[in-house]
Formats: sequence, structure tokens, C-alpha cells
Amino acid sequence: MTDVSTPEEKTKADQKPAGQDMWGGRFSSKPADIMQAINVSIGVDQRLWSQDLAGSRAHCRMLIKQGIIGAADGEAILGGLETIEGEIRGGSFPFRDSFEDIHMNVEARLSELIGEPSGRLHTARSRNDQVATDFRLWVRDACDRTGHQLVALQKALLGRAEQHAGDLMPGFTHLQTAQPVTLGHHLMAYVEMFGRDASRFADARKRMNENPLGAAALAGSPFPIDRHATAADLGFDRPMANSLDAVSDRDFALESLAAASITAGHLSRLAEEIVVWMTPMFGFASLPDDLTTGSSIMPQKRNPDAAELVRAKTGRILGSFVALSTVMKGLPLAYSKDMQEDKPPVFEAFDALDLALTAMTAMVAALIPNTERMAAAAGAGFSTATDLADWLVRELNLPFRKAHHVTGAAVKMAEGKGVGLAQLSLSELQSLEPGVTEAIYKVLSPEASCASRQSFGGTAPEQVRARIADWKSRLK
Amino acid sequence: MTDVSTPEEKTKADQKPAGQDMWGGRFSSKPADIMQAINVSIGVDQRLWSQDLAGSRAHCRMLIKQGIIGAADGEAILGGLETIEGEIRGGSFPFRDSFEDIHMNVEARLSELIGEPSGRLHTARSRNDQVATDFRLWVRDACDRTGHQLVALQKALLGRAEQHAGDLMPGFTHLQTAQPVTLGHHLMAYVEMFGRDASRFADARKRMNENPLGAAALAGSPFPIDRHATAADLGFDRPMANSLDAVSDRDFALESLAAASITAGHLSRLAEEIVVWMTPMFGFASLPDDLTTGSSIMPQKRNPDAAELVRAKTGRILGSFVALSTVMKGLPLAYSKDMQEDKPPVFEAFDALDLALTAMTAMVAALIPNTERMAAAAGAGFSTATDLADWLVRELNLPFRKAHHVTGAAVKMAEGKGVGLAQLSLSELQSLEPGVTEAIYKVLSPEASCASRQSFGGTAPEQVRARIADWKSRLK
Amino acid sequence: MTDVSTPEEKTKADQKPAGQDMWGGRFSSKPADIMQAINVSIGVDQRLWSQDLAGSRAHCRMLIKQGIIGAADGEAILGGLETIEGEIRGGSFPFRDSFEDIHMNVEARLSELIGEPSGRLHTARSRNDQVATDFRLWVRDACDRTGHQLVALQKALLGRAEQHAGDLMPGFTHLQTAQPVTLGHHLMAYVEMFGRDASRFADARKRMNENPLGAAALAGSPFPIDRHATAADLGFDRPMANSLDAVSDRDFALESLAAASITAGHLSRLAEEIVVWMTPMFGFASLPDDLTTGSSIMPQKRNPDAAELVRAKTGRILGSFVALSTVMKGLPLAYSKDMQEDKPPVFEAFDALDLALTAMTAMVAALIPNTERMAAAAGAGFSTATDLADWLVRELNLPFRKAHHVTGAAVKMAEGKGVGLAQLSLSELQSLEPGVTEAIYKVLSPEASCASRQSFGGTAPEQVRARIADWKSRLK
Amino acid sequence: MTDVSTPEEKTKADQKPAGQDMWGGRFSSKPADIMQAINVSIGVDQRLWSQDLAGSRAHCRMLIKQGIIGAADGEAILGGLETIEGEIRGGSFPFRDSFEDIHMNVEARLSELIGEPSGRLHTARSRNDQVATDFRLWVRDACDRTGHQLVALQKALLGRAEQHAGDLMPGFTHLQTAQPVTLGHHLMAYVEMFGRDASRFADARKRMNENPLGAAALAGSPFPIDRHATAADLGFDRPMANSLDAVSDRDFALESLAAASITAGHLSRLAEEIVVWMTPMFGFASLPDDLTTGSSIMPQKRNPDAAELVRAKTGRILGSFVALSTVMKGLPLAYSKDMQEDKPPVFEAFDALDLALTAMTAMVAALIPNTERMAAAAGAGFSTATDLADWLVRELNLPFRKAHHVTGAAVKMAEGKGVGLAQLSLSELQSLEPGVTEAIYKVLSPEASCASRQSFGGTAPEQVRARIADWKSRLK
Repeated sequence: MTDVSTPEEKTKADQKPAGQDMWGGRFSSKPADIMQAINVSIGVDQRLWSQDLAGSRAHCRMLIKQGIIGAADGEAILGGLETIEGEIRGGSFPFRDSFEDIHMNVEARLSELIGEPSGRLHTARSRNDQVATDFRLWVRDACDRTGHQLVALQKALLGRAEQHAGDLMPGFTHLQTAQPVTLGHHLMAYVEMFGRDASRFADARKRMNENPLGAAALAGSPFPIDRHATAADLGFDRPMANSLDAVSDRDFALESLAAASITAGHLSRLAEEIVVWMTPMFGFASLPDDLTTGSSIMPQKRNPDAAELVRAKTGRILGSFVALSTVMKGLPLAYSKDMQEDKPPVFEAFDALDLALTAMTAMVAALIPNTERMAAAAGAGFSTATDLADWLVRELNLPFRKAHHVTGAAVKMAEGKGVGLAQLSLSELQSLEPGVTEAIYKVLSPEASCASRQSFGGTAPEQVRARIADWKSRLK
Repeated sequence: MTDVSTPEEKTKADQKPAGQDMWGGRFSSKPADIMQAINVSIGVDQRLWSQDLAGSRAHCRMLIKQGIIGAADGEAILGGLETIEGEIRGGSFPFRDSFEDIHMNVEARLSELIGEPSGRLHTARSRNDQVATDFRLWVRDACDRTGHQLVALQKALLGRAEQHAGDLMPGFTHLQTAQPVTLGHHLMAYVEMFGRDASRFADARKRMNENPLGAAALAGSPFPIDRHATAADLGFDRPMANSLDAVSDRDFALESLAAASITAGHLSRLAEEIVVWMTPMFGFASLPDDLTTGSSIMPQKRNPDAAELVRAKTGRILGSFVALSTVMKGLPLAYSKDMQEDKPPVFEAFDALDLALTAMTAMVAALIPNTERMAAAAGAGFSTATDLADWLVRELNLPFRKAHHVTGAAVKMAEGKGVGLAQLSLSELQSLEPGVTEAIYKVLSPEASCASRQSFGGTAPEQVRARIADWKSRLK
Repeated sequence: MTDVSTPEEKTKADQKPAGQDMWGGRFSSKPADIMQAINVSIGVDQRLWSQDLAGSRAHCRMLIKQGIIGAADGEAILGGLETIEGEIRGGSFPFRDSFEDIHMNVEARLSELIGEPSGRLHTARSRNDQVATDFRLWVRDACDRTGHQLVALQKALLGRAEQHAGDLMPGFTHLQTAQPVTLGHHLMAYVEMFGRDASRFADARKRMNENPLGAAALAGSPFPIDRHATAADLGFDRPMANSLDAVSDRDFALESLAAASITAGHLSRLAEEIVVWMTPMFGFASLPDDLTTGSSIMPQKRNPDAAELVRAKTGRILGSFVALSTVMKGLPLAYSKDMQEDKPPVFEAFDALDLALTAMTAMVAALIPNTERMAAAAGAGFSTATDLADWLVRELNLPFRKAHHVTGAAVKMAEGKGVGLAQLSLSELQSLEPGVTEAIYKVLSPEASCASRQSFGGTAPEQVRARIADWKSRLK
Repeated sequence: MTDVSTPEEKTKADQKPAGQDMWGGRFSSKPADIMQAINVSIGVDQRLWSQDLAGSRAHCRMLIKQGIIGAADGEAILGGLETIEGEIRGGSFPFRDSFEDIHMNVEARLSELIGEPSGRLHTARSRNDQVATDFRLWVRDACDRTGHQLVALQKALLGRAEQHAGDLMPGFTHLQTAQPVTLGHHLMAYVEMFGRDASRFADARKRMNENPLGAAALAGSPFPIDRHATAADLGFDRPMANSLDAVSDRDFALESLAAASITAGHLSRLAEEIVVWMTPMFGFASLPDDLTTGSSIMPQKRNPDAAELVRAKTGRILGSFVALSTVMKGLPLAYSKDMQEDKPPVFEAFDALDLALTAMTAMVAALIPNTERMAAAAGAGFSTATDLADWLVRELNLPFRKAHHVTGAAVKMAEGKGVGLAQLSLSELQSLEPGVTEAIYKVLSPEASCASRQSFGGTAPEQVRARIADWKSRLK
């Protein structure tokens, strides 16, 4: 966007015979085609239309109130903007490349609709503060929407966690069975992650919620504008305190992209788990037909396409953060045209995140865990070896090193016999450590292992249910 | 893309009453809306239509030749594909979201046009090798196009370098004047860079030019197909030698994105220079009106928007490399749906690069250097201090340290008097180093400085012209 | 880090003759050299030593208080840890590759120092929660330090802004002169940016300030530990509520890297401006000798190396965010060894940011603006064209389009005559618009232009001083 | 690196009393501590020592041959460089921060060792072309080393592929069983990938193999140097043809990082598979004890730490490409200090890649596949459904759609009965399609399925063995 041109001028210019002046009567020729091709952004920024109208309305109301424009002109403008909104909603608005961007398209149309008064709308405003305002409003909306979607996903997880608060599954490290946990506990880990993600968007929203409007091209305005009034009108907490900063920074977009990227990373982990759980080798879970794709020729297949696509969206969103970061690197103040490249990465990242959150919420709600297979796997692989060692420390006061040594020997013995730890006889265990008693068997089942982990945030079902209750009251 | 489903099956399913079976008669419900939304790619991959038709024709001709399908069926298919090409070119082809991707859209349409024989086209083929082929063909074309654009840009640079082979400008380090160079020499630096860029695309093209078709879903085909024949038909050097690799790798896309990113980096440097040269503080160059934008209210401004946008495209292209790299990280073989996210970053990056190269070529061709200002700046700032020191070493055989010390003192003296080095009198110079003679003045002008740098690749105008001649014969 | 091994076991193993058992008596051979080479992290994570000691002390005190270990053992451990701290501070601590990481090094040394009781320290703890705690403490410290550095930089900027609140400079768009602003106003734009950066680190710090300790390997602990007590001891607000989440997420590190990357982007813009201002073509500012480098042979040069290096650090810091984001993508819960790669990017990014902030603060404090050149440039280039147009709208009630047209014509006229707008005579101006009066000359100087922009956040010196006052009271 | 300073000057300066002159006698104070801290690079670039010595020797020999320096001085220099090499190899060389970088350290030491003649070495050279040469030599070496490592990895894979050319495993799409393949075929897919990787490094090496030496600071040299001679001496194919390009571009580093990143992506996929194969749920493979880590308390665990670390290195390497790309974005020619940040990402990326390739080669060589489990899984999940459909098409000439429908019904029937396709009786199959004959059973086993896929590059063991033979002769 050029800083301070008036769109209606362009409009006229485009309607004049070729060769005639534009840009205030001085440029001797029309921008070349390539210039047009690289410069035009209406294909991208038309998504800002409702923010653009909101900004224009707030600006207009303020101009009237401050007596900067007359009431009649102001009413004509507001009426014209309402007509435009109707046209856009109705699909009849003529988006035209020749007007370059959304601001020029709206204002050119306004000029066609109401004539001369349209020119007054741009008083004490520039495209620089206008686009900064529009884009900030859009990103603010995107953060709000994402926040709601994250809560929906958390609620889906909470519902499933409640169902499975006591159902066993293996807790993995290195994708090796380590200790039994419950499926509810596992799902609650994601409730925590997505809770932090939501709070990141909330923080970003709060930080960005300042009004750039009134910064004009870059230096502020000599008109007696009231930036606090437009701030209030648009739901901003206050005006931005420096006009150069207002038109030249895009850190609010970067912060939102970073939050989106971190969220996508969390989603990619859950997506990976769904893919892994659904492989026949695991068989831990399945999804209903309408959330998988199949193959006419291999009808047995249930491809977790949606989970894979969610996993893949991480790339696009991280790429967007890199793209905008690179664009902004080393730009001198104030506005540079480079900044027109701020919108594609943001739109694409939030589109991707929107899809990914919706798809993941659907998958979480519909996931069909095979709790039997999960429970069987939870008990395999000597997963309660830690419990044996802890018992030796706790009950026999063995030093850790000794306890671990005994446990290692017990596992080796069981492995050699092809049985589990709980299948070793008391005398066999006593051959390794004479102090062992019958009580040992109470800790060697995966159920007992889980139940014993009563520390705050541990996998004991009571703990899991307590955490679910906490979150339910927070998300009510 | 799901691996081996037949699109015509989907077509039928979509036309059946809701609730009826599809996916080979076993899925009990239609994919949910979200599944459709996240899964559909026709909006993106319809750009592959001509590659898809080329692949299908080559496959069909081979099937006929190998006797895998009958000649009549084959002819019907080829005729149908021709009709489809006409429809797409004519804008009447019905792209439909319900058929998910370009392959399904084409094959569903083929089925509508020619009925049963259409089903034979998919013999010994899968969507996995089909999309790998289509995408590889597209990227190959993009590399070729980019190569041509780079040559066009080099030629524009060569033309300007020839014009300005002897025109002085400051050579900068740290954006501080260091030594005089010629504008032609400066522009030739970019000819070298873009030459390496072009060779990178050529290498990538050569490496990717292998045929994935015939890999089928992942394991190859039991039909007696001739992959060398389809390779030849599609201009590939040979078939890919491993069917799993053929359907599952996208390194050709990554390599092309890397080459694009490096090229964009070079473009960003030249773009930065144009922006800097055009600032009034430099005043080194301007662009004609049709390659700048202005402002109706500040009609004196010539904003280098195109240069700034070229500079900004670096972000998008680097972001694309990051996006696809992240997508591919850690995917097990063979095809995973994540890989559907391969196309948006590639399409976007090459669109951006296309625009950037075209715009830069136009700017280079049209740039109006202010050679007077450049020359004046080339001689300012004691830019020939190095020449003075070199003379002391060469002619008086002073050790470097001593020569540098004398030079530093001379600069200090000149700075104190507010004159240039060449304005110091012989006696002044001799007060610093008695051996100095009148001959010294022959090296103290910027012209002499440039002319003296006759080493291969140096800035002496003869050298610059020799390098221009080299490149002209290479690019003929 | 392997999840739950006890380091003292390793210690012994390493001292045993080759071939003897380790890893609990079952592994038949020593890890191969390559395994050692890729696995060892002590070279990197020894930077966590003070956090590791803090975590161990808090854990030990809690174990004593809860009666999980005896007071005597506890005192021995605390004493041993103090000895270790002394050794590390004194440089005599034997960091050994054979103990892989900082945790094992500390605990092996503890075992050497106090013998058997050392083994009790690891009760109810695992390396997984230990490293999560250590690293979180380190990142928290880094956020705090960065916050302080940002305030120092803001204070330096405030001081300079106060000095130059009324000094004119050109406000640029597209690096073209657009409107006059004041240098103070320009510097205050960065105060705003760095203020948001500081608040980002504060938010990140608050969000990460939860205690992972007590999550044990992944499932929580069966010992009666008090995670709220260790949280309080370590300055955490509360324990993390899910043990799987506690050991497996690194979003706190990613969020900090994102904040660092955005900050680095802001720094890169100011650094770019310093480089540009110092080029002889601008001559807007210089830096004292001790903040530039020179050249013995080109002693006139003042190279802004520090500014360039600050600008370059953006790359490293953005690269770190990409690195860790890529590492975390698609990892299933809970701990995977991939996560050992979390520390290098974080350490490197914060080292780079530390240097960059310190160097920038020094440069801001020492910058020597050439206010005369800045002021001259502020008035050149018809920079008050906007003021002329605004006057026509405000005083003559011209519609914008008409006002802009008149202004464009005036600029053209002045350009043709080689004079500034204020040098046009009244009759010349009236030939373009008869309503113009003598009053017009009051708005055509850059001083008047600045002074008129009294809107909140505008460049009028009173506005700038008011914003400076606001910030001074906020940063007191 | 500053462009053209002579290090010996610095040396002296540092030894002079504080306050005395340096930088050619004009700087009034020593660089501040922060300047030193941000500027110093010897900690990083001392890795270039052998390249620096090689470059200096070649330069010196050329200076002698061209008569630019005397033979005696030249011999003294060459002798001094030899002494320095001995000191560095022997560990006695005094690396000093006060000399900033490797070039200054070497030359300062040379001055200490041989006195005045040392000053002649810098004739017709600058730090700008010196560092460009050193770094290019280092990257060239790194590309060569990586090429060798890739061949070693390919050979390891070939050996294992030969062993398992006929051993069945499931071919996956979406991590769902799709069709049987052989383990040898699967491993050969990676041979192809790493072969392309190696050719990428070879191309990069070829493109970068041009000599920057003699470009001097940026403009070339007035001395009668012979750049072709130094090129030949250093193994370069030719001198770089433009002196500005020679000192200011780093695309050779970026291209190498891109190749490294793509290679790392391939490694990450194989690493992911090793992790997945080793999870007890798959049980497809294990690694010997010396390539896994265990846990003293969970001695049953075999953690694939090395594979996870290989997978993680992708992040660091991709991050390095982003880092350097961001650094270079928008830098005007020629040298800017930003470019000092070129080395850390390159060193770190190649260190990571070196470790990853070595570790992966060790894992491939030592991997213990559980061929029984793999084969069992290859036959499960109706993996030969495609073969059934293909048979119907081939033998009964059924149209594809019909064939797929019959196959889907057969799978459904088998699934309902809890048997495999081959366990359906002939009459059962005939109930679905009367034309089916006994011959069908020949294609329903996974062995038959594999054996039938004889297309070039397919999974039939003969094909796999043929491809192995091809590669063996190429890598001989």
C-alpha cells in the first residue's frame, strides 16, 4: 500500500483515457503490467473487508463528532458503507484488480455510490494506519476464534479423559514401554498443553489490542482527531502511543504466528500418536469410517488421513512464521512495501490451524480406543520394574543402587523364564533379596502401579479425576 | 491422495443416495464434512492438470503397446483425454470438490465421457505414482522456466554492465566507501550469482528427471509394463529404480525450493541496493514512473515498491522450504497423507520467484543511474588510500606496516585540512615519507585506482569488459 | 537423558574392568564410541549446573521434611552439594564425558564425596523430571535477564529521545522522505517495540513458572512427596498438573525463542538504521571510535561492525526457533531422546540476544546524531506537501481530491523551479488555488509540520515529551 | 573481519601502552569491551586454521613466483607458516582473543616468529578474500567428507539389502499395511535417497570450486598477481570472475546447508522407522546393546537413543539453513560484518550431520531384524487384496471397478470369518465371482505378491537383487 494516496484519485485515473495523469497529475505513464502484477493485493486482502468497513465507520463517526467533517457528509458515508457491506455479503460487490487493494476497492465504490462526500472519509487518515488497523483487527479475531477452538478441543479431551480415567495404557519413553499410565492421564497431558496455547493467544490478543488508527501516514495528524474514541469504538484498549510504531510494526502478527506454530506442534504430537495407535501393529485405537479414508481395492484399510494432515500443517504454520520474520528483518522505519507480504502467511497459517483444530476435535471426540489391547500392553515388558525397586527402597530401606541391582536381576530372571515379574515365585524373588515378602505382589500389577502414583499430577486415577474436575470448573 | 482407489468408484458413490456404500462397498457412512474440508486438494492441485493428462497419455500408450489394454479401449481413453484437455483449456471443465483432487476429477470426467473403458486407464497405476509423476513434471517445468528467466535477467544485467563498464561508483564494505569500482563491475557480480543460480536449477532438474510412473502404490506392478517407454514418452532420462522411493520422496521439490531460496536471497541484495540507491540521500539511481508508485499527495515521491516486494519475496520462499522440510521430517515410508502438503509451498514459492525475477529484470533494464553522483561519491572519503599504500609498497618497497602508517597519517592530514588525498601537496606528502615523488598523483584519482586493478576479475574496465564478453558468448 | 537410571551405577560401571555389567547387570558390552559421541551432552548442559544444584537441594529438603529419607542422609547430601558448588565455582570440579550429562556428573561426584547416602537423593525422582526442572529454571532466568536488558535499552533510548525530542529528521516510507518527524519520536518508536518485547518475556516467564519436579520418569511417584513444597522452594507458582506433560513438553523454550526472535527482529531494524545513518551518503550519525572498527589502511573508515553483528544475530535466533520446532514436531509422549537437542538452540539464541542487547544499548547511548544534516534532509524533498494539502482541506474546506491535485501541481511547480514549497510566492500558489492566503506559509516549514501533529502519539514535540514522561514513570 | 587491516599492526597496538594509537594511528581509544565481545570470532573460526595456512602458502608461493616479494622474504614466510602448523598440531599455538580471528592470530604469530618479512605476506591480499578462501576450502572439505560418509552408509545398506532381498515385510501407506514388500527393497529405497544426496554434495562442490583469492578487499589488486596459479595450487578449477562477488557471496555455504538439510530429512525418516520397528508393539527389529541405552531400573528397555538423536539433528541443520539465509537477506555488496555469522551455522550443521551419518551407518550395519515378525505382519491385514483384484483384471478381464468390488466383498467376507484371503474356499470366492479358479491361490500369499512385482524397480526379489548389483558396481 502506498502511504497516503487517495483511492478515488486512482479510480478516476483508471477511468481516464490512457496517457492522462494520475498520482496527483505528475506521473507520465501508467504502471507497467509487471508493476501491476507484483503490486496488486486485492486477491489476498479482500479478506479484510469487514475490518476495513469497521475501521472506516469508527473513523467517520469520530470525524463527525469532532466536527472535522459535516454531519451530512458523515451520514452519506455511513450509508454508503452500509450499502457496500450489503453488496459484499450479497456477493455483488465488484472487486477490481485495478484498485489494487481492499481499501481502494471500498473507497472507489464509495465514491461511485455517494460521490463527493466519499472524499472526506480519508481526512486525517492514510492507507498506512488504515491497513495496520484492519490487519490488527483481523488477527485479533483470529486469536479469539482460535481460543474458542482450543477450548472446544480441551472439552473433547476432558470428556474422553473422564471416560478413561482408569483405563490402563503403556506410558512410553523412546516409544518403549516404561510404566503403566491411564489413558485419561495421557489425554489430560494435552489438556494442559492446549490450555497453555490458549493462554498464549489471550496474551497476544491483549498485547496487540491497541489502536493504530490516527497515526496517519507515519507522523500523526494535524486534525483534532480523537484516537481514544476510535479505540473505544473498535474495542481497542487504548491508542498506540507512537505513530511511527503504529504503522511500521507487525510484531502482533509474528507473536500470533508463533503461538500458532507452538499449538501446531502440540497437535502434531497427538496426531502422530493417533497414526501410531491406528497402525495394526499397535491396534490401540480406531476412528469411525467418516474420519478415515479407505481404498476401494484395499477395503480393510482405515487410513488416518486427517491425523496425517493435522501433523503436516505444522510445516505450513512454522513456515509462515519464518516467512514473516524474514520479511521484517532489517527494514528501516516506517512503512516499507515489503510489509504487504505480511498477510499471506498469516491468512494461510490461521486457515491451516483452523482446519487442524477442527479436525483434531472431531477425531478426539470419535476416537475408539481398544482398551483391552492398551491394558495388555501396559502390563507387558516388565513395566512395573520401577515399582519393584521402589518397594525395595521403601519397605526394606535398601539403598537405591542395591534396589536397582536386585530389580535388574529379577527382570533378567523373568525374561529368561518367559514370564512377567508377578509370575516369579516368592522363593525366586527371595533368592535375589531375602527380605522380600508376599506384600511385593501388591505392587507388581499395572493397576497397582498406577494406583500408587498419588503424587500431585500423577497417574493414579483419583489424581487424574481431580485434575479433570479442576479443568472442568475452569472451562465452565 | 489415497493410494489405490479408483476414482470412478467415488464418482458413483457420490451419485448414490446418501448412506449407500462406497470405498469398495464397506464404509458405512460418508466422510464427515471436516474430513472433506481437510482432505480436499482440488483447489490447489488443479494446477497439475496438464501434467496429469501427459502422464495419463503416456501410461495409456504404453498399456496399448504392451497389450495390457486393448487398442479400442486405449483409443477411447486417448480421445477422452483430448476432450478433457479441450474442456480445461476452454474453461468448461467441471472441477468438483467432491472428487477431491485433480486425478479423480480427470478420471471421473473420463468416465462420464467414455464410460467403461475409462476404468482400464488405472490398470497398473495408482494415485501414488500418478501424483509423484505429475508433481515431478510440474517442478521440472518450473525449473526450466526459472532457468530461462535467470538468463533473461543476466542478459539485462550484461547490457547495463556494458553501458557502464567504465563508470565509477563507490565500492562499499559495511556500507562505508572503501574503494572505487565501476558500475559495470558491480552489476557483473550479480551476473555471476544468477549464473550459479541457473546452474543450480539445471542440476536439480537433471537429478529429478527420473520416472516414478509404474511404481504403482508402492511395490511395483505385476502387469508387464514398460517403465522405460513411459520415461521416454515423458522426457525422463530413466525410470526411478525403487518403487518405494518413487512414491515417497519429495527431495526434488526440496532441492528446487532451496535453489529458489538462494536465488531469492541474491535478488533481495540487488533489491536492497536499488532501494538504497533511490533514497534521496544517495540519489544514485531512479526508476521510470511505470516501475515506481507515487502518492497523490506527495507527488515528488518515487517509491521503489517493486524492489521492496522483490526483497520481501525472500521470506515467502524461505518459508516454503521450511514448510516442506518440516512436513517430510520423520515420515516413515512409503506414502503418508502429510505429503499432500507438498504442493502449496512449491506453487507459492515459484509464483513468488516468477514475479520477482520478472520485476527485477524490468527494473534492471530500466534503471537510470545517476553516474555523476556515483562518480563523485566514488572519489570521496579518501577512497584511494589503499592505492597510496600500495604505491608505497610497490615503488618504495616499504614494508606494509610502514606503508599503512604513512597512509593513515596522510588521510589524517587531508581530513584535517578538509581536502582529498590528491589535494595534498608533494611537500606535505614528503613530510610524511620523504621518498614520495610526483608519480604518486597518478594513483590517487578514482579513475586511476580502478584502472590499476587489472588482476583477473578485478574492477579495471578492461577486465570488466573481458568478463562481459565471456558471459555473452556463454549465454548466446 | 535416559529416563530413570542412577548415575552412581554408571560411575561404578565405568570403573570396572571392561566386559563387566552395567545398566543393572544386563547389557553385555559398553556403548560403542559413536554411541558415546552422539549421546554425550555434558559439553552443552554443564551450563545448567546451578539449576541442577538448586533442584537437588529443594528435592532433598522436601525428602527430609516428608520423612522419605533420614535427616542424617539428607544433611550429608546437602553438604556434598555445597562442596560441589564450591568446586564448580572454583574451577576444580571434574567434568567428565564418561558421565554423559550434568546430572550424572553431579551425582557421580556426590557419590565420591559422601558415599552411600548419595544414592538416596534420587528417591522419587528421575532424570526426566530433573532435566525438565533444570532447563525450565535456566530459561526462566534467561527471560528475567532479557527483561532487565530490555529495560536498560529502553532507558538508553528514553534518554536520547529526551535530548532530541524536538530535533528534526525525515520520516521515511520506502526509504523515501515522506514527512518530517523528530529524532526523539523516532527513537520512541523503539521504546514501544522493546516494551512489548519485555512484556512478552514476562508473559512467557509467568506461563512457564510451574514445577515439573516430582513427575518422576513420567507417571508421578508412589512416595509421599510434596510437590507444592519444592515448587515454593524453587520459586515456582505451583506444581505442573500432569506428570506426562511435565517431562515431555518444551513449549516454554519455544515461546521464549519466539519472543527472542521477535526482539531480534526489532533490533535488526534499529541496527539497519544505524548502518544506513552512518554511511557517508546519509551522514546522519556516527559512533565513537570504541564502538566501530577501522582499517589501518583506510583510516577514514568507521565501520559499524557492532550494528551489523546485531542485525545478523536475527538469523541465529530465528534459526534456533526453527531448530527446536522441528525437533519437537511429531514426537509421541512422553520423553524421547530427541529432546536432548532442546538446549543448544536455546543457549545459542540467548547468548546471541544477550550480546545484541548489550551492544545495542551501548550504541544507543553513544550515538552521535548529526542533527544539522538530519534537519536539512527533513526539509528537503517537499516533505511538507501533506501539510499543504491538509491546510487546503482544513482552511478552505476543499475536498480531498481537489486539495491533493493542487498540492501535486504546487510540488511540480516548485520542482520545476528548483525550490522548496515555502519558496513559492503567494501569487504562484494562488495561481493554482485562488483561496490560498499568507497563512499557508505557517505550515510549510518542517518545524511547523511537526509541531502541528498534535494527535495522541503524533510527532509534535509536546506529544513526544508526554510519551517520554509516561515511559519514565512506568520504568522507574 | 575488517576488510584490509594488517594484523601485525594490531599485534603491536595491543602490546603498546593503553591510549596509544592503533588502526593506523587515528583511533583515539581501544574498542570497548562489548565491541570486543561481539566482534571476536577466534573461538569459532580457529577451525579454519589449516585452510588459512594453505591459502597463505599458495599466496606466498605465487608472490615469489611473480616477483612481488623477494625469495628470501618468501622463504622466511613459508618457514614461519610451517612452524605455526607444528605449533597448532602440537597444541602449543597461542590462540589469543586479542587478535580477534584466525587470520590475525596466524599473522601475529608469524610476525613474532620471523619479524619484518611477515608483513609482506599480506601484499595484494585482504582479510576479505582471505576469509572467503579459507571458508570455501573448509566447506569443500566438508562436502567431500560427507560424500564419503554417504557412500559408507549406502554400502552398509547394500550389504543388509543383499541379506534380506527376499525377506518379507509389510509395505505401509499411512502406517497401515498396504502390500508386502521385501526388507531388501525397503532398504534400497534409502540407497537411492542417499545416492541423490551424495550427488547434491558433488554438484555443490563443483560449483563452489572457484578461487576467491586475489579479489583483495573487493576490487582486485594492482599487483601483478596470478590468480590462476593460486587456484591451481589450492585445487580450485579457476579463479572467481568477479572480485565483488568473490568477497561478498556465501551461496556455496547455503547450497551445502540445503544439501545437508535434505540429507538430514532422509536420515530422519530412517531413524523414525528404527524407533518404530523397535517399539515392542512392532518388534520388527532390535539393536545390539552397544547401540542402545538402557535403564538400571528398567533393564528390559532398549532405548533407541542414537536413532532419536539422528532424527533430532534434522532440526539443527534446517535451523542452520534458515539462520544463514536470514543473515544474508538484503545485504548490499560487498562485505558486511553480518557475514561473520556465516561460520557457526555451517560448522554446527556439518558436525551434526557427521555424527548422524556415522551413527546411522553403525545402526544399519548392526540392526537385527526380526524377520519372522516382519513376515507375519506382511501377510496380515489382507495385504494381498490388490493381487486378488489384479488377477481378476488380468485373468478374467474384469473391468477395474468390478474387480475392486469383488475384492472388497472378499475382504469383508474374510474379515467376518476372522481368516485371511487365502483361507477362503474356492466356492466362497466363486460365490462372489463365478470365474475364479484354483489359480487364484497362487497370488494370495505375500511371497507370491512380491514375486509378481517384476516391473523395473519393483519389489520382486530378482528386481531388488538387480538393483543391488547396479549400485555395487557404481560404488565400487
